[in-house]
Amino acid sequence: MVEAVEKLTKKSEDPSKWYLQLVRMAKLADYGPVRGTFAIRPYGFALWERIQRDLDDRFKATGHQNAYFPLLIPESYLKKEAEHVEGFDPELAWVTVGGREELEERLAIRPTSESIICDFYRNWIQSYRDLPLLINQWCNVLRWEKVTRPFLRTAEFLWQEGHTVHATAGEAREEALRMLSVYRDVFYETLAIPVLTGLKSESERFAGALETYTCEGLMGDGRALQAATSHDLGQNFARAFDITFLDENQDRVHPYQTSWGFSTRTIGGLILVHGDDRGLKLPPKLAPTEAVIVPIWRGNNKGEVRREAEKLYVELQTAGFRMEVDLDEEHSPGWKFNEHELRGVPVRIEIGPKDIENEQAVLVRRDVGGREGKEFVPREGLPGRLRALLGEIQENMLAQATEFREANTRRAESYGEFKEIVEEKRGFVVAPWDGTLETEQKIKEETKATIRLLPFEREEGKDLVSGKPGRTAVFARAY
Amino acid sequence: MVEAVEKLTKKSEDPSKWYLQLVRMAKLADYGPVRGTFAIRPYGFALWERIQRDLDDRFKATGHQNAYFPLLIPESYLKKEAEHVEGFDPELAWVTVGGREELEERLAIRPTSESIICDFYRNWIQSYRDLPLLINQWCNVLRWEKVTRPFLRTAEFLWQEGHTVHATAGEAREEALRMLSVYRDVFYETLAIPVLTGLKSESERFAGALETYTCEGLMGDGRALQAATSHDLGQNFARAFDITFLDENQDRVHPYQTSWGFSTRTIGGLILVHGDDRGLKLPPKLAPTEAVIVPIWRGNNKGEVRREAEKLYVELQTAGFRMEVDLDEEHSPGWKFNEHELRGVPVRIEIGPKDIENEQAVLVRRDVGGREGKEFVPREGLPGRLRALLGEIQENMLAQATEFREANTRRAESYGEFKEIVEEKRGFVVAPWDGTLETEQKIKEETKATIRLLPFEREEGKDLVSGKPGRTAVFARAY
Repeated sequence: MVEAVEKLTKKSEDPSKWYLQLVRMAKLADYGPVRGTFAIRPYGFALWERIQRDLDDRFKATGHQNAYFPLLIPESYLKKEAEHVEGFDPELAWVTVGGREELEERLAIRPTSESIICDFYRNWIQSYRDLPLLINQWCNVLRWEKVTRPFLRTAEFLWQEGHTVHATAGEAREEALRMLSVYRDVFYETLAIPVLTGLKSESERFAGALETYTCEGLMGDGRALQAATSHDLGQNFARAFDITFLDENQDRVHPYQTSWGFSTRTIGGLILVHGDDRGLKLPPKLAPTEAVIVPIWRGNNKGEVRREAEKLYVELQTAGFRMEVDLDEEHSPGWKFNEHELRGVPVRIEIGPKDIENEQAVLVRRDVGGREGKEFVPREGLPGRLRALLGEIQENMLAQATEFREANTRRAESYGEFKEIVEEKRGFVVAPWDGTLETEQKIKEETKATIRLLPFEREEGKDLVSGKPGRTAVFARAY
Repeated sequence: MVEAVEKLTKKSEDPSKWYLQLVRMAKLADYGPVRGTFAIRPYGFALWERIQRDLDDRFKATGHQNAYFPLLIPESYLKKEAEHVEGFDPELAWVTVGGREELEERLAIRPTSESIICDFYRNWIQSYRDLPLLINQWCNVLRWEKVTRPFLRTAEFLWQEGHTVHATAGEAREEALRMLSVYRDVFYETLAIPVLTGLKSESERFAGALETYTCEGLMGDGRALQAATSHDLGQNFARAFDITFLDENQDRVHPYQTSWGFSTRTIGGLILVHGDDRGLKLPPKLAPTEAVIVPIWRGNNKGEVRREAEKLYVELQTAGFRMEVDLDEEHSPGWKFNEHELRGVPVRIEIGPKDIENEQAVLVRRDVGGREGKEFVPREGLPGRLRALLGEIQENMLAQATEFREANTRRAESYGEFKEIVEEKRGFVVAPWDGTLETEQKIKEETKATIRLLPFEREEGKDLVSGKPGRTAVFARAY
């Protein structure tokens, strides 16, 4: 039970404090003893389970199979791809003792699994008949982060990592883009987060990749969150790990690879995008509880109201809704309203003596406040109306988030304007970039804004800093 | 594709070689670079996914929720429960460096999670209203084993570990027994493995438990496999980790706990119990592919047979069967028969020109050899007959395994007979035991047989070694 004695900080007043408080009060996660480690509590994990099921179904529908690879990676394996080890080395945790003995070679806890998976793939791939190889794994990974925050940046986190191998460069690129669009669909359709998609600049690319494609979400505080990425690895890893196959002409050649990942970080995004001063706001498709029944009783009618609430609960549960009924006798209805709003339950169903008399119930939606969010529904038509309402809420949450994103995406015509937007309004800033690391870094140093992505549709323009010709990029301060 | 060029060693000739060869040939698992680590390949992982789904549904139906706890456990936490650390210390892998710095305190990779979970539970549990707390986690664990074998004993393995907290000793005991019976049901109903259930002797108990309940399976080579365990932890961990709650009388007291686990080890059991000289034999409920269609064509009718096979595939797939159709043109039907038998596919459907003419197909079941296992089925009634046949195979596999277990469970009337059975026949040996560590160890040293379990139904008798009064125990050499 959430203790409503504590009052949630307003999101607008202190988004950072609001976030940490909400994670705790809604029992989503809790701090572990080792810096940067967390337990994901049942209510938070239920969100992850629903995301997992949705993604996994889509992976299988696109021909992928799950597998599992070892947690521990020998140091020598990580060193095989030079850029890769350079990118991850500062964040590694090392096992040096096993079974009471010093190990001859240090073992890293996987920060990502390309290097160990490539070692297996070298043996599994012999001929073009073995391709494409389309494998995904669900697992934990660990990156020793300095500053951490539940879900958004944690030392250990859960994710899926897809690792595929293809005969041609074109097929690999197609796969990387296909999985980006699977991610995009899940963000739009399930999480109600209207991410932008595009390419990463070279400096923001995955260590060892030819090209990184990204989904970027805009959080409620105007900062961007890199929500999921898909990498075209080209032949970089195949060369480093000596993966070859006999093609149809009997030539021994290196294949082309992709990798792509989606993590528990998105739960942080979900909180930041949809949450408000009253707490979480969960899209119905993800909500562990779609609707909660709160009976409104007084001493003399408690028995009857309780029975009706229980009856309605069984009826709706049987009809396939994920339901709760709050029969707690310690707290008032008002206290319960606050609690279930804090937990982000999409719909509250109130039922009292008058409603029983009138053969109706009151539906209150979480995404719209005040009178507008409240409707009286005849008892008989309740399941149908609830089904429709959940659909409306899902759509409305995406519409609200899209509206917010559009209102907070601005074009800058000069570097002065660029700096002003980043400093005062935040959000996405669209501006041409000349493609050099130099201007990218200057902008980052002076404004803390980074290039979130380069849109797929190329748009020419003059760089605001250098005046040189370039292409449009989307900038933002990021998590 | 399995390379049938290599011939599988006979199970009866060299069960150990047969096992390792089969794991590799059926592409279930592959060796990792670190000793005792393995990749679970897609075909092996598909088995685990189906087991997971089955168990998870049953956990939820009995009121449990999933959560996730950190991988890394500080050394000081592990030391809080004395017996617990003593039991696991020799098998731990230690992280000593993180983010390029030596850590102040070593961190163990979880060998099991009681100690870290108890630390969270101390904060989550305040009042009797917070109980029972019924949480499960699916994760990887690591135990630095000296001798390893894919699935059966690996350094890293996957499992679920349930961790529950209760107000009374009775409720905790009830929970531990309830989860044992959930495991038992999954073994019987899904894996078709007729495990025996009972209590562990003190020396075989989980480190820190009051009582350990176990499911013991009898493998095809007559050795026993501890397949899943459920522990009544009493107040041992609650005391060590200072977990308390305010009971209904407002007294602060320690709660009672349980833990229970089921791991990828069972996949090894599945192979050993059902596999035969031709390879794997998968129970239909677990088989990633329930039936495979093998078209039998010659040059002149290939087109027609291929079309019919594809049509049948779509028809059965649409009817809800997990299907494959083997349209490979490189290999002969005979080669394909061997391959799919090696992979343990429960039913093969053959379709050739004559079958098309007669509007029929041939169903060949994997669990029964020769003519008996073959039947001609009218094309029209195929889905119905296939459904029924899969049910028959599932039942028959349990019946075969039960018959084997019964034929290999023997009562010993003297210690001489006991030794003879263990040495020459293996299997389960039922004999009275006086309850002392002394005789238990003597038997183990002299025969390599250990007490697998004490049956729940107590049966009195005289110990074969000491002649003292005792109760019946089930002994066996074990994996």
